Amino acid sequence: MAELRNDVFLRALMGEPVPYTPVWMMRQAGRYLPEYRATRTQAGSFLDLCKNAELACEVTLQPLERFDLDAAILFSDILTIPDAMGMGLYFSEGEGPRFAKKLENERDILDLPTVQVERDLDYVIKAVETIHNALAGRVPLIGFSGSPWTLACYMIQGGSSKDFRVIKTMMYCQPDLLEHLLDHLARAVTAYLNAQIRAGVEAVQIFDTWGGVLAHTEYRRFSLRFMQQIVAGLIRERNGRRVPVILFSKGGGLWLEAMAETGCDALGVDWTVHLGEARRRLGGRCALQGNLDPAVLYASSEVIRAEVQRVLAEFGHGNGHVFNLGHGIEQWVNPDHARMMIDAVHELSRQYHL
Amino acid sequence: MAELRNDVFLRALMGEPVPYTPVWMMRQAGRYLPEYRATRTQAGSFLDLCKNAELACEVTLQPLERFDLDAAILFSDILTIPDAMGMGLYFSEGEGPRFAKKLENERDILDLPTVQVERDLDYVIKAVETIHNALAGRVPLIGFSGSPWTLACYMIQGGSSKDFRVIKTMMYCQPDLLEHLLDHLARAVTAYLNAQIRAGVEAVQIFDTWGGVLAHTEYRRFSLRFMQQIVAGLIRERNGRRVPVILFSKGGGLWLEAMAETGCDALGVDWTVHLGEARRRLGGRCALQGNLDPAVLYASSEVIRAEVQRVLAEFGHGNGHVFNLGHGIEQWVNPDHARMMIDAVHELSRQYHL
Repeated sequence: MAELRNDVFLRALMGEPVPYTPVWMMRQAGRYLPEYRATRTQAGSFLDLCKNAELACEVTLQPLERFDLDAAILFSDILTIPDAMGMGLYFSEGEGPRFAKKLENERDILDLPTVQVERDLDYVIKAVETIHNALAGRVPLIGFSGSPWTLACYMIQGGSSKDFRVIKTMMYCQPDLLEHLLDHLARAVTAYLNAQIRAGVEAVQIFDTWGGVLAHTEYRRFSLRFMQQIVAGLIRERNGRRVPVILFSKGGGLWLEAMAETGCDALGVDWTVHLGEARRRLGGRCALQGNLDPAVLYASSEVIRAEVQRVLAEFGHGNGHVFNLGHGIEQWVNPDHARMMIDAVHELSRQYHL
Repeated sequence: MAELRNDVFLRALMGEPVPYTPVWMMRQAGRYLPEYRATRTQAGSFLDLCKNAELACEVTLQPLERFDLDAAILFSDILTIPDAMGMGLYFSEGEGPRFAKKLENERDILDLPTVQVERDLDYVIKAVETIHNALAGRVPLIGFSGSPWTLACYMIQGGSSKDFRVIKTMMYCQPDLLEHLLDHLARAVTAYLNAQIRAGVEAVQIFDTWGGVLAHTEYRRFSLRFMQQIVAGLIRERNGRRVPVILFSKGGGLWLEAMAETGCDALGVDWTVHLGEARRRLGGRCALQGNLDPAVLYASSEVIRAEVQRVLAEFGHGNGHVFNLGHGIEQWVNPDHARMMIDAVHELSRQYHL
């Protein structure tokens, strides 16, 4: 097994001293890169690309060839688990992920199969192994899944939604049924992330894309609680190293204290949060990951540099910061602008780690 | 001029003692009411209805006939100002508001006309006068406008957006140009709200629907600052009574302290906020309005009652709370469920005002 040559990302997640602030970008292997678009054309659909270990490995490594990134992230989708449950994931242009089937009643929920990761999601495990070998210790590999609440949103709504009316109606009218579904999903996510860890990922992130649409009490009951169940069930050490866990609830800036109580190592935060205030609120209980507005990458190099400086200064001196965007990089971004951001993080952050 | 017979809403906004917690609902005159749908059919388009003072008055009063509400809100749209600037507001089914024209370049922005409220928005003023006369002091009438940032979002994007890419690109690349537009809009909103106050509204609310998509520093610079400019320019007393101002930035729960510094009287908050925590953070500087998740109205009477009780208990004993939903009531809600909520607020809140 190749030794990890750059562990700055992992050490930052654990609040340990680092020489500079590590950086990666959510959706860093994506449509803004022409080489990604070329591979994607070769593969067929987005899901075909996820299911082809060699090509998934190729696109995972593409941004690392261009940029000085401190982590790689498995090329996959947050919704592989419901797809493995037979719901028929597909992507429609401009509308995002959709499911061929929806969960429409109690029977649909009770009849959901139990995912056997090694059988039903073997393509992800194979991709992790392939990427891990190809990385050969260059940087850590991040594994991930959608949160139970986020998976349930897509499974019940059938796709994205403005008001989440169907799942919220179930939440307020049949909370026990929804909790049954969320528990079923939490067990699947736990097994899935553990299989990713065994196959070689060195950190995991749970994407709670839709946690922020919930009222604060419902967030705790229907999203956070099931993420906590996952965190409690994860392999936390592998080959003598801690495997850090990052929770990212988009729009969850008001709830960081509660999120920290799950026992995770780091919290992803979006750009509505002031990192220094978040740090004070957490008092060192968790590292923070974020939080540049991805739209900054449409601006000039001067503006990008100034905004990177601002984010670094807001976090301030000391440890426990992983630089990232507050959401995925957008498809219209010029890759040179991503490089400007990454290089600025490395250069400007050294003063905060003296 | 008829004397106001129920001023509980106005007193609550000013933090004064009241016998119970007043309640109204954003979008309370709307599609969930069959009588609204009937009047709307008679009027033609949504905008035709806004522009017909008699019919706008009719729909404004409809929810008051059904429910024991403590305030009426002018029936209009948040985007009347850009429409008056010649941008051609229309509504497409399922997509929300759209503009026939977009602001695409510097010239479009510099060429925007100055709205003369009495000439270009006379239909709103006439509607206010008609409704004020028809209310005859029954409850206060609320006037409103979209915030400059929210108006600019629609004017530049041409409609709603997921990522606000065009306006954010302008914000990061041509901030001075965007500030010019926002200042122009702030002046128009100020004149517009003052005309509404002179015509009879007894409180005003600024709807900052899209403030929450901004990074925290950009929120202050591009949204809050222009709302502050408006607050500073408003008529704050009329006929010996204070005219309270409510700011509502959806998704702005992290920024309440900064919002309070504008000098407004009350802050609207969505359901992600714990009212008791918000109250502690504000230390009595502002009243709070909110914040039930509108999706609760899909549930049973028991759940509605329990959730109303929870919101009231979170705010706790004492003054400075106006009950509302955290966003507009949705078109699929059964009107009887709105009544359950309203009656529960009145009944259950008395214990908090002893």
